[in-house]
Amino acid sequence: MGLHRVVEPAGVLPQAAWRLDASPEIAPNEVRIRVERLNLDAASFRQLWEKHGGDGDAVRAEVLQIVSTRGKMQNPVTGSGGMLIGTVEEAGRRSPLGLRAGQRVATLVSLTLTPLTILDGLARWDGRSEQVPCDGYAILFARSIAAVLPVDLDPQLSLAVLDVCGAPALTARVVSRYVAERERAEDPTPVRVAVIGGAGKSGSLSLAAARRAGAARTVGVVPVVAERDALAAVGLADVVALADARDPVALSSAVTTALGAPADVTVVCVDVPGCEHGAVLATEDGGTVVFFSMATSFAAAALGAEGLAADVTMLVGNGYVPGHAEFALGLLRSESGVRALFEARLAAD
Amino acid sequence: MGLHRVVEPAGVLPQAAWRLDASPEIAPNEVRIRVERLNLDAASFRQLWEKHGGDGDAVRAEVLQIVSTRGKMQNPVTGSGGMLIGTVEEAGRRSPLGLRAGQRVATLVSLTLTPLTILDGLARWDGRSEQVPCDGYAILFARSIAAVLPVDLDPQLSLAVLDVCGAPALTARVVSRYVAERERAEDPTPVRVAVIGGAGKSGSLSLAAARRAGAARTVGVVPVVAERDALAAVGLADVVALADARDPVALSSAVTTALGAPADVTVVCVDVPGCEHGAVLATEDGGTVVFFSMATSFAAAALGAEGLAADVTMLVGNGYVPGHAEFALGLLRSESGVRALFEARLAAD
Repeated sequence: MGLHRVVEPAGVLPQAAWRLDASPEIAPNEVRIRVERLNLDAASFRQLWEKHGGDGDAVRAEVLQIVSTRGKMQNPVTGSGGMLIGTVEEAGRRSPLGLRAGQRVATLVSLTLTPLTILDGLARWDGRSEQVPCDGYAILFARSIAAVLPVDLDPQLSLAVLDVCGAPALTARVVSRYVAERERAEDPTPVRVAVIGGAGKSGSLSLAAARRAGAARTVGVVPVVAERDALAAVGLADVVALADARDPVALSSAVTTALGAPADVTVVCVDVPGCEHGAVLATEDGGTVVFFSMATSFAAAALGAEGLAADVTMLVGNGYVPGHAEFALGLLRSESGVRALFEARLAAD
Repeated sequence: MGLHRVVEPAGVLPQAAWRLDASPEIAPNEVRIRVERLNLDAASFRQLWEKHGGDGDAVRAEVLQIVSTRGKMQNPVTGSGGMLIGTVEEAGRRSPLGLRAGQRVATLVSLTLTPLTILDGLARWDGRSEQVPCDGYAILFARSIAAVLPVDLDPQLSLAVLDVCGAPALTARVVSRYVAERERAEDPTPVRVAVIGGAGKSGSLSLAAARRAGAARTVGVVPVVAERDALAAVGLADVVALADARDPVALSSAVTTALGAPADVTVVCVDVPGCEHGAVLATEDGGTVVFFSMATSFAAAALGAEGLAADVTMLVGNGYVPGHAEFALGLLRSESGVRALFEARLAAD
């Protein structure tokens, strides 16, 4: 778990630590990665970008300052991090991760708990994109997760998919449970799924995952016309609806109209605060809301559902589900709609 | 939903609003309550108490200022509220709540979304307890929930139970699911439950609920010797363990030692920040963590589980489950251990 890398405060896990020891010498159960690129969490990048009014140099300076101060890239405001790709430089003899020197990997644990040292001052990054070219070192612990990058896919494409691969896996698991329960009860009611932020990375993968898990009717909700057109063009959702997810009445009306009833499963994939109430209102009694957005407020979700007397199950979107990387990469390979959206997004970056 | 009571910002639900219209004239689907007592949320009271260094007059002044500014009692720092008891003064002819003038009720929706006007300056409150004698008005919406107070129980006892009645109901639901799945799979493994903060209000009710739902082995974790002795004396848990829930390694060791393995279901009932990682570590792969504490950090839970590669389901503790009030009051009546802890707590207040 990397407890020996925690400098302060003592006794917490690396993710909760203010500062980690990012020295490059590895323990027998650790792995050292030579970093080639960081992928900042969307909520973190957005906060930095807005704080500095779009001044890329200032964004870069703050990222450098965070990493040198904390020994990891964890945005102190959003609490979030991101992930990285690089090459295995040295694997400790007792590391259980099965990695070998020379393998190109992506880390599937957050940067918020990954000891990191930047060596090049981020000189190749203009501070204007979540994708950060970077030379440096990072350390993986025994319980960290890393995926060897597939040789058949552009590494940036793999990275973009792996960054959000928990979302489709958990969506599939939750939707499958509803499908199985309906089958067991011989209930012919179709399982309805809404994905809020359906045109984004985690959203488009979640739509594909929901359909594959047996969702009979899906809606992707997006905030702007350009995303509506893009998502409609690739056919990943039965309906694409336009609504501001921060407006509870507008969101729930859009979902209910699109599906003919509230959703059995609502998946929140938009990184803006204030979507909790709309998601709850858009969900059928007995349904489930899965929150993947790091902008989710625990209290707003808990008190909102209570205040609406809404009998919905609300899940904290756990980024780890066994097999999540393979599942998400499989969706990218087999669903041309997912691939089209990801490639368009990378081209626009 | 009370949208017409939202003054600012427009378009949000009452819980998310900065300010509500708390005027006493009711709409046809509303109910006006004459308030007799507020019960502040534990996290909110603790924040106010600590901010003012235990100065009760300053705590009272701030509560008055919050309510007069916001038209509701929502602590701006913790985001939480509490509940109230009072008497139905007027029920609108289209209110679906089934209440009649003269009934003594407790609101089961949070004060964070309940329009409130205080009339007596809280003159009878010393600012030193969560229980606030209060004369004033409150408004219930069509979707609000209120329970008529049982005549066989002290109203303060009922209020204390109803305040946390979502916790035992959701705990019972989650534990029942594990019991049923094991039975279906003919898996003889006992279902193990850990309740963090097991001697508190929601904690003791959750322990009783877990056992009633079929948990074969339970542990209540408490932070201090006095709570350990109190919980052990009433026999609500198979084991009582002493650990600091903010120390992940200590918490998970205590749970695993007590249960012989990590918990299938871990219920977090302690209102202090930083318990997310310990709860995740204390839980078996495939298990569920239910977070009832308003001090829970969404990001810490999500990233913590991911960082530990922990395949656990994490639930936002929804305070509303159908039948929750009756279930919790039933536990109080039938479980002498629960009743003893609640009565001791009220006597100490």
